[in-house]
Amino acid sequence: MKIALIGVGKIALDQHVPAIAGSEDWELAATCSRHGSVPGVPAFTDLDTMLAAHPDIETVSLCMPPVPRFDFAAKAIAAGRNVMLEKPPGASLAECHALEAMARAAGVSLFATWHSRAADKVQGAKAWLQDKSITRAHVTWRESVRKWHPGQDWVFEPGGMGVFDPGINGLSILTEILPAPVHLRSATLAYPENRQTPIAARLSFTGNTSAEFDWREEDRDVWDIEVDTPDGTLALRDGGARMEIDGADHDDGQPALGEYPRLYVQMADLVRAGAIDMDLSPLVHVADAHMLGRRETVEPFDF
Amino acid sequence: MKIALIGVGKIALDQHVPAIAGSEDWELAATCSRHGSVPGVPAFTDLDTMLAAHPDIETVSLCMPPVPRFDFAAKAIAAGRNVMLEKPPGASLAECHALEAMARAAGVSLFATWHSRAADKVQGAKAWLQDKSITRAHVTWRESVRKWHPGQDWVFEPGGMGVFDPGINGLSILTEILPAPVHLRSATLAYPENRQTPIAARLSFTGNTSAEFDWREEDRDVWDIEVDTPDGTLALRDGGARMEIDGADHDDGQPALGEYPRLYVQMADLVRAGAIDMDLSPLVHVADAHMLGRRETVEPFDF
Repeated sequence: MKIALIGVGKIALDQHVPAIAGSEDWELAATCSRHGSVPGVPAFTDLDTMLAAHPDIETVSLCMPPVPRFDFAAKAIAAGRNVMLEKPPGASLAECHALEAMARAAGVSLFATWHSRAADKVQGAKAWLQDKSITRAHVTWRESVRKWHPGQDWVFEPGGMGVFDPGINGLSILTEILPAPVHLRSATLAYPENRQTPIAARLSFTGNTSAEFDWREEDRDVWDIEVDTPDGTLALRDGGARMEIDGADHDDGQPALGEYPRLYVQMADLVRAGAIDMDLSPLVHVADAHMLGRRETVEPFDF
Repeated sequence: MKIALIGVGKIALDQHVPAIAGSEDWELAATCSRHGSVPGVPAFTDLDTMLAAHPDIETVSLCMPPVPRFDFAAKAIAAGRNVMLEKPPGASLAECHALEAMARAAGVSLFATWHSRAADKVQGAKAWLQDKSITRAHVTWRESVRKWHPGQDWVFEPGGMGVFDPGINGLSILTEILPAPVHLRSATLAYPENRQTPIAARLSFTGNTSAEFDWREEDRDVWDIEVDTPDGTLALRDGGARMEIDGADHDDGQPALGEYPRLYVQMADLVRAGAIDMDLSPLVHVADAHMLGRRETVEPFDF
């Protein structure tokens, strides 16, 4: 099946292009981007032109930042194409609801991807937890914004999500593996005095569940989820790439496919089934944290 | 049908009790509240005790503030009772989704009421707009927090929603009357230096739609929505109680029933049909505004 990449930046080149190249399902048939392109692949700078020139491309994958994404997605759906969305699926919840309604009306597939959910051990963790009672769950997502977003001031502008940009990855795993949904009780968001989005956050949910996100961690990336049950403690580490039970590595027998290859397998399944997967629960928690959270001002941040 | 009021404060006594008393559908059979009661009606202070003592009460109406509301609603649903929720239906979106899932599983009715949607002219405005193209829409919600919430510091605490507490009423009408949904593009939220929730907000939506909310209006209440179309301008004033077309009063022939009596008619219809009405779109816009909005610090506010 032919696919086009819309938005050819770092995430597209690092993850999407190799995942498509290694896929048995997909052929990268065009790109559309203001600046980026992929050697040997027809490159467009205007989406309308590309859609008109390539009626054979039935699916597009959108890799630009969340704020401009809606207009591109809406245009592709209106042109009858299946759409795959990088996380988060939009800058607002209302626009995600609108896209889903448009996709249903147009009869196309729509996939709100959450790449961390496609990490190798997430389904194993979900399977292990499904019949357990949860006594405590905690998400720790700590990394350096200087390392991961050097000089990218947009992450601190409204809509850039701040530390929720990585934190939502942890929430996307949490919402996937817990056997029952939780909801936010309270939150504290730490805003640098000179910035519009939080650099750190602490979230407290029902079900003795909590999360801490911090973009000021300069030593190492910590992307961990720990879940206590009467039958033992499960830990997902390295963003879902490793799984431990009571501190011992656990091999669930699943292949180490990697996040983006797995997302493209899932998209192929959705397209063949004519289905929609638009689970917004990670973004709902982020919106709730902004609505319910206590704001704290912390020291200015500059790259 | 027998109904119980949970939370007997100002809104219950001012609006819910008279609406139930004047209804042909409902009989107020009990109250449950830490402090309030209604003369001649059995009064409880504990929900479990009330539910156990009154299996004949199939429906409860919840009138407490949003933060504690979830636990009461969950308990009532678990006990097989139909539930009617004051606006907003919860402090978080995730808890509203959870309540809806619980109500579906339990087979009970659940009604997220938006009292302003039940204002006399809202359905007339919706009918007039349904076949029009909208060229501009603007919501103006200005009132004095000193007048409407004297000394109520909780409105400025996290979860209290600030100026979105009244503003969501305007959004509830907007989302009801527009023929197509809009979503937020940007917002500015004004936080008093000493407070946790905004005292004013400006919202910009798709579809040339906008809203301004201000709690610092000391002259008069302004609760207006204006919608321009090629066929004329519709205005809803006084929170939906009056409708104008091109500046002239418009009588749509609907009875002047009032907001809360109409809500209790709708709840009776839902219970008879075994249906759920859990439209969260006004709260989605508020959450989006918090997530996407630019924060401005303004002068301290004290009552």
